[in-house]
Amino acid sequence: MKSEKISEAVVRRLPVYLRYLNELHKREVATVSSQELGQKLDLNPAQIRKDLAYFGDFGRKGIGYDVSYLIEKIRQILKIDQQINVALVGAGNLGQALSNYNAYLKDNMKIVAIFDSSEAKVGKQINTLTVQPMDELGRMVEEHRIRIGIITVPDFEAQRVADTMIEAGIEAILNFAPTILKAPPHIRIHATDFTTDLLSLAYYLEGGKDDDNE
Amino acid sequence: MKSEKISEAVVRRLPVYLRYLNELHKREVATVSSQELGQKLDLNPAQIRKDLAYFGDFGRKGIGYDVSYLIEKIRQILKIDQQINVALVGAGNLGQALSNYNAYLKDNMKIVAIFDSSEAKVGKQINTLTVQPMDELGRMVEEHRIRIGIITVPDFEAQRVADTMIEAGIEAILNFAPTILKAPPHIRIHATDFTTDLLSLAYYLEGGKDDDNE
Repeated sequence: MKSEKISEAVVRRLPVYLRYLNELHKREVATVSSQELGQKLDLNPAQIRKDLAYFGDFGRKGIGYDVSYLIEKIRQILKIDQQINVALVGAGNLGQALSNYNAYLKDNMKIVAIFDSSEAKVGKQINTLTVQPMDELGRMVEEHRIRIGIITVPDFEAQRVADTMIEAGIEAILNFAPTILKAPPHIRIHATDFTTDLLSLAYYLEGGKDDDNE
Repeated sequence: MKSEKISEAVVRRLPVYLRYLNELHKREVATVSSQELGQKLDLNPAQIRKDLAYFGDFGRKGIGYDVSYLIEKIRQILKIDQQINVALVGAGNLGQALSNYNAYLKDNMKIVAIFDSSEAKVGKQINTLTVQPMDELGRMVEEHRIRIGIITVPDFEAQRVADTMIEAGIEAILNFAPTILKAPPHIRIHATDFTTDLLSLAYYLEGGKDDDNE
């Protein structure tokens, strides 16, 4: 596995493949071609073959990819062949919405703790979790070996929350606050910005449609 | 403007540039270099120069980019130099959270209507909007010239909502439901899948860190 050269774009496509492969697996489909993957996921089949070739020689000409094998491989590559524990800070509407996704994350990852700095929210029940105060974060991260943090607080609180997470030993952060976070280089931060998704969609309105059919 | 060849990856970076440029503009910074943009946004400066060169010759050697001019240009390219109206379907936690982002979208885009199929939610006030029943969607899309739809309903309802939106004349959809939607080719659909973001983050845990410093 030549993991040194994989671009973020490729890494971000792997869970997309995984989701559809899981769907196929549920429907008891045994093999899938890059053509079918491409059509379903709106990606170029050559791109898909190239992406998957980074990780080894999975496909067989004329047959396609073995669904179960590919699921297993992608899970290994993404390092989600063991459950990864996640903490979420910010028990507002967005935090509550995200905590519902535990079901979709399946056995790959799990939000195991939710925190909030507001006394009004501490103690509140969200699905199976009870909102905890921020000063419990360090202990929980250690106790549950939490490695990833999700930030769903307002923008002006996000940096402080990130600092607390990093101090507690969290290694990667998914930031939903619409602000750019500072962190040491060994901490991986991904920003999920809804406004970015929405604004980029405007480009494709009227006239600009379908211009990336390579 | 050679808009035929711009890849989705580039289009998706433009709002990221725009957000930081707006921030610079607010701080009354007049010019910015690709180096600074790269450092701040964790992107390769050469990549940034290449991205912006698609749209014309903006930068000046040794001086950098004029912040106001670049903001104006990116807004034009993304076609958000006029307000684009957006409808949201699904007034649950996620829908409520997203409706708070109107403030961040500024004058570029606006969620002007929220719909839900549940009678319990219809009539509810979310910020300045009142949740409307689904059968009002067609009329509202026409009346307010709504061009983009956001789907924040559970996965099993998402396709039906998408069909209704498309029938009403909506041209592009941002889908938050963790399912793949079918749509005619002239309809642009972007999926914003939180689980994808989270799973791809796992790749960078332990050992896999910082391997894309080209």
